[in-house]
Amino acid sequence: AVERITWDADAAERGGYPHFMLKEIHEQPRAVQETLAGRISEMEGDVRLDLGLNQWEIQTLQRVSILACGTSYHAGLLARYFFPRTAGLPVDVEVASEFQHMQLRPGTLLVAISQSGETADTLMALKKAKTCGVKSLAITNVVGSSITEIVDATIYTRCGPEIGVAATKTFVGQLVALFLLGIRLGRARNHLLPEQGRRLLGELSRLPGLIQAVLERRDQIREIAQRFSGADIYFFIGRDILYPIALEGALKMKEIAYIPAEGYPAGELKHGPLALITEGTPVVAFATCGEKIYSNMKEVRARGGEVIAFAAEGDREAAEITDTVVELPNTLPVFSAVLCTVGAQLLAYYTAQILGRDIDKPRNLAKSVTVE
Amino acid sequence: AVERITWDADAAERGGYPHFMLKEIHEQPRAVQETLAGRISEMEGDVRLDLGLNQWEIQTLQRVSILACGTSYHAGLLARYFFPRTAGLPVDVEVASEFQHMQLRPGTLLVAISQSGETADTLMALKKAKTCGVKSLAITNVVGSSITEIVDATIYTRCGPEIGVAATKTFVGQLVALFLLGIRLGRARNHLLPEQGRRLLGELSRLPGLIQAVLERRDQIREIAQRFSGADIYFFIGRDILYPIALEGALKMKEIAYIPAEGYPAGELKHGPLALITEGTPVVAFATCGEKIYSNMKEVRARGGEVIAFAAEGDREAAEITDTVVELPNTLPVFSAVLCTVGAQLLAYYTAQILGRDIDKPRNLAKSVTVE
Repeated sequence: AVERITWDADAAERGGYPHFMLKEIHEQPRAVQETLAGRISEMEGDVRLDLGLNQWEIQTLQRVSILACGTSYHAGLLARYFFPRTAGLPVDVEVASEFQHMQLRPGTLLVAISQSGETADTLMALKKAKTCGVKSLAITNVVGSSITEIVDATIYTRCGPEIGVAATKTFVGQLVALFLLGIRLGRARNHLLPEQGRRLLGELSRLPGLIQAVLERRDQIREIAQRFSGADIYFFIGRDILYPIALEGALKMKEIAYIPAEGYPAGELKHGPLALITEGTPVVAFATCGEKIYSNMKEVRARGGEVIAFAAEGDREAAEITDTVVELPNTLPVFSAVLCTVGAQLLAYYTAQILGRDIDKPRNLAKSVTVE
Repeated sequence: AVERITWDADAAERGGYPHFMLKEIHEQPRAVQETLAGRISEMEGDVRLDLGLNQWEIQTLQRVSILACGTSYHAGLLARYFFPRTAGLPVDVEVASEFQHMQLRPGTLLVAISQSGETADTLMALKKAKTCGVKSLAITNVVGSSITEIVDATIYTRCGPEIGVAATKTFVGQLVALFLLGIRLGRARNHLLPEQGRRLLGELSRLPGLIQAVLERRDQIREIAQRFSGADIYFFIGRDILYPIALEGALKMKEIAYIPAEGYPAGELKHGPLALITEGTPVVAFATCGEKIYSNMKEVRARGGEVIAFAAEGDREAAEITDTVVELPNTLPVFSAVLCTVGAQLLAYYTAQILGRDIDKPRNLAKSVTVE
């Protein structure tokens, strides 16, 4: 007789993880390695990337204008803080469906970010922008996708296929691609010295190991998720380079746990949203970039809110404000954005799991939004 | 015998209104008149405003950079759409606490917006920005406030004192001041022809009467507020010039009704937040600026959400999508932003009233935020 073996192809692909999302969260050290592979020139403290621009075009750039939607938009916002510092270039970031192409000036480099390379809003905005005659660059995860045919050059994130609807490893891949781009522009424009480039790249190379260390905090993060799984609303706050991560953390919580969540620049809380913070309201504070956020954490505590801090190892000030501190390995503030992201992904994931949500296919959402 | 008369000074000042906020909402036609008074040159289709810049400086401007917090930040965002069209000038708008002064270039006009003129975050950012050597302009409601001493010129909004913590008439005053500024810059740069200036100013002069017409919809808006006063969350969506109004509508709902509320560019709903929209979720759609929002309203309906549309009189498409349409008088889309604002203020006000909130002094908030 023939023996029937039940074999679940889906489960096999999930490689033992209960959801693709959790698998993809754990693939992030590897995804970062791949995105970096072969692109770092240690000697020159520089990055090897074809930007479709010659040396003169890079040196005479005036501005970078970034187009994206959803999670990719949050990645773009981080460049807004990074590129002025590394490359002396101001950056505009625009939600693609709101893109006002009349704002483009000569000397602008357009950067369009889309995981799938098929996001309709981004493709439409890119086509409009191209009529202004500017050079363009895509950051995408999908080789040969539509976006790559429109632009002058593409930076691939090389994260491998992402199945979970909520982007995780591809967001981190986008951040890493933008770090590389910022360093490349900075070196080509002589805004960064070789030793500055080397220092940034050396630290960037450590990122896979640092992400692994955050993943090992999963039990602590699961306990926090459990404690606040009944929350009516979550706030996420950050300053500077961590403000985009606050937006992304809130988006993950909305997308898969269906808990209302808002990301705010920490300084804006007192200009309105503080009215919603009462006894027990969870407020996630990303505290690895500057001291100013401590006063915002205290504002929250003073109203009875609960602060969940992601802070650097040994941060005593954070530990004095709240008992709930997830310690992250030390690195440069800009790269700590990736570590905070991983923490926020795990928090949203476990919250959704505890609430029994359909994590890999959240209601009403599509993986790749190919309609405007 | 002496007769004792109980006299409530506070109530007298409220002029018969139960709250300062409602009084101030009703003062908006007058506030707009005052902000416009003596500033319109009908013949030349131009605006009389001292910008602290000579003709050559205005003509060689490259960019406008706006700094503000909270509600004033939302006013600034509207200029981001308006100034490129009227004056050919790209605009950056920055939350003051997140201001990155290294993004400033020569040829930038800095505009700082603060109702009180004492907002600590805005004053600090302004001082940092001034070190870049750019010209600066304040928009404020308070004569002689600290901000006016830092800048090269001031545009006063002339709304009279605002007592309610949630800004209403001063926000509308800021919008009108920005309309005037956009037209002035456009005329001085020959980007607007005299007849274009006349057309805009003619329509702007009608605004007090149009606001009055929206105020007369108060009973309908109160009924809508009643119907959704038990909502767990509100969404506000708009596109283009109405996206900042979506943010402002959501902020009012948070500030005084304490209902979680998010403002979104309508095109971004499908990139994440749609996961929170289920049977009965109220979504306020500002539909007086372009046709693209209809498809977003349909997306909401398809998930069982309830669309509350603010639409132009006789808008059949909006009426086919939802039964809940508040009709606004016809005007140019850019000025309809003011009418949508008034509608959203009334919606938040009545919701807060029904829920018994402390409307003029919402918890945790101060009228003028003089700490960083």
